[in-house]
Amino acid sequence: MTSIGIVAPQSMFFDTPLPLQSGAQITDYTLVYETYGTLNADHSNAVLVCHALNASHHVAGTYSEDAGTTGWWDNMVGPGKPLDTNKYFVIGVNNLGSCFGSTGPMHINPATGKQYGAHFPVVTVEDWVQSQARLADALGIKQFAAVMGGSLGGMQALAWSILFPERLRHCVVIASTPKLTAQNIAFDDVARQAILTDPDYHGGDFYAHGVVPKNGLRVARMLGHITYLSDDDMAAKFGRELRSGSYQFGFGIDFEIESYLRYQGDKFSTYFDANTYLLITKALDYFDPAKDFGGDLTKTLSNTLAKFLLVSFTTDWRFSPERSHEMVQALVNNNRTVTYAEIDAPHGHDAFLLDDQRYMNVVRSYFERAYEEIDGGSLKAGASA
Amino acid sequence: MTSIGIVAPQSMFFDTPLPLQSGAQITDYTLVYETYGTLNADHSNAVLVCHALNASHHVAGTYSEDAGTTGWWDNMVGPGKPLDTNKYFVIGVNNLGSCFGSTGPMHINPATGKQYGAHFPVVTVEDWVQSQARLADALGIKQFAAVMGGSLGGMQALAWSILFPERLRHCVVIASTPKLTAQNIAFDDVARQAILTDPDYHGGDFYAHGVVPKNGLRVARMLGHITYLSDDDMAAKFGRELRSGSYQFGFGIDFEIESYLRYQGDKFSTYFDANTYLLITKALDYFDPAKDFGGDLTKTLSNTLAKFLLVSFTTDWRFSPERSHEMVQALVNNNRTVTYAEIDAPHGHDAFLLDDQRYMNVVRSYFERAYEEIDGGSLKAGASA
Repeated sequence: MTSIGIVAPQSMFFDTPLPLQSGAQITDYTLVYETYGTLNADHSNAVLVCHALNASHHVAGTYSEDAGTTGWWDNMVGPGKPLDTNKYFVIGVNNLGSCFGSTGPMHINPATGKQYGAHFPVVTVEDWVQSQARLADALGIKQFAAVMGGSLGGMQALAWSILFPERLRHCVVIASTPKLTAQNIAFDDVARQAILTDPDYHGGDFYAHGVVPKNGLRVARMLGHITYLSDDDMAAKFGRELRSGSYQFGFGIDFEIESYLRYQGDKFSTYFDANTYLLITKALDYFDPAKDFGGDLTKTLSNTLAKFLLVSFTTDWRFSPERSHEMVQALVNNNRTVTYAEIDAPHGHDAFLLDDQRYMNVVRSYFERAYEEIDGGSLKAGASA
Repeated sequence: MTSIGIVAPQSMFFDTPLPLQSGAQITDYTLVYETYGTLNADHSNAVLVCHALNASHHVAGTYSEDAGTTGWWDNMVGPGKPLDTNKYFVIGVNNLGSCFGSTGPMHINPATGKQYGAHFPVVTVEDWVQSQARLADALGIKQFAAVMGGSLGGMQALAWSILFPERLRHCVVIASTPKLTAQNIAFDDVARQAILTDPDYHGGDFYAHGVVPKNGLRVARMLGHITYLSDDDMAAKFGRELRSGSYQFGFGIDFEIESYLRYQGDKFSTYFDANTYLLITKALDYFDPAKDFGGDLTKTLSNTLAKFLLVSFTTDWRFSPERSHEMVQALVNNNRTVTYAEIDAPHGHDAFLLDDQRYMNVVRSYFERAYEEIDGGSLKAGASA
């Protein structure tokens, strides 16, 4: 395995309005994306990697010699890596409403000539998939070898399989869920309330005030972080370790876990946009493709054509293995080809980003088998889903 | 079972300074308390009920005809109830640093002539027990029939058994833990950070500014509430029910769970003191009696003399049954008499406040047996722990 090396983002402007699930539309927009590897002759080796809450199009490689600029799934994507860029042409795309280059709340609303701020329309997982499909069109990709993602990224992969069944041969859904539980929504809403009630939020127009709702974002991130780690992992990493060996009897830092979370919160509040945080948690809460099928996930997935890989992690209490079981069962009910791996990993939800060899091997062998459908740069006859 | 009827709080002033674990002291203080039932001739039927985070001395009965003034454990304490006030003399006491009458951050610091605010000293579970022991002295109670509490109240009961082994015959520890986990501490710290970074907190001196850090308290309470309920219970009660039948595509209220939590947060922020919230969560975080015994809970409990009743609830993920198992094991290691009930209840941590008949029956029969040690108003020979 070698590093993918230095990469650069690209961008594409779309001047056709995008109608949204809400009934609103985005007049025009830019999507920022990156690609790794080479698109083959018949464009059959493309894999779309969808990102989760705070990630971006920058999936793999670096922007400079600085390892701090490494992409968020660099352990997964690259030459010789589980998703092997010697074989596949991999695309990462920043979602609409995010804050890493694609059109979002910080950009100018053409209707007003001012920054969108809180007026950026609420976008859904399905809206993102529609915008990604346009990017695929523009890149000449009629059918992806796979659409893949973890967590919120897995929801996008699942939505692709429902909205565009003929446009992906494989659907890879990792550490995800067909819908959030009341507890998931509750955590999201506490985070949103922290941001919305921060006086520096200014109703979403904080850009004009030259401030950011740092305190709200910080609390939101601290809280989110707790749900990404398992109780056991937190106990193993931090336990009740004290920063300075004894209780301080004040409200500064006593425990290492406090130090860690506050650091994570502080860091996050310096680079992440508060309006984006609100938008993306709403996309999470709203995702529920079975809603239009009377809550019947089997019916919801009845028109899918892809083969599926699902992976869950035993200690993930955000999107627990039970949520993956629901998807597996619904796919099996439809006689779909499903590979399911439940990885006994201690790291909670974050496990999907980490190097567990069993997990990596599952994904690697899945993509190796999937590549057998592609022969000498061309899709074999009958391999199309 | 009849209601205990209308009750009234009493208060007692202590002019002897109370030395605290932190090394600081409280010069003088008032404890507010309530009593129910009648103290018998040899003062052997007294039960101390310790309260958790946001409760008080008002354990049972009402303050008026208004049922909204009912005490927080009225289902547990009263004539004919599991802790039967026809037999026992029950005392509820508001802890130091709380905001329901006993000396706390809103009161005047005699050293400065101003409200304590953030300068109220950090108090621990053990400090509370010391202050409660002085109240017991003043009421002429040398030995309690039992000290009892749920959650943080259970920690106080446990601390009583360690600090004053001869002063209680029974120790009743419900839905509690011998120490918080890293995840427990993490949730507490997020709540504290929400309060501390609310501009209306004013470094703890918000009283002088005529405001309260409502937004911080609200977020703290919403978050706390999530940890009091089980995932399953939240799913059963709220699921993904929408307030108005369809997505609003904004940041108002979509889901019933959001409405419920925001309501709980709003209500809490109108009556609870922010400095008290900080203090009480610190007391929770600091509680770790085994810390002075090299982390060995068996050693920690080796000097206890009481008999123990422990109760846990299967879906309590705040203080899970495993935490009770640790205490039971350490007590068994010391050949203590332990009754342990693990109640299969869906309601999470809050189950300790609710009417589960199996739970109520366990407590009822425990107190009935304990009362057999008391005969005709006098402790039987040999019954002393």
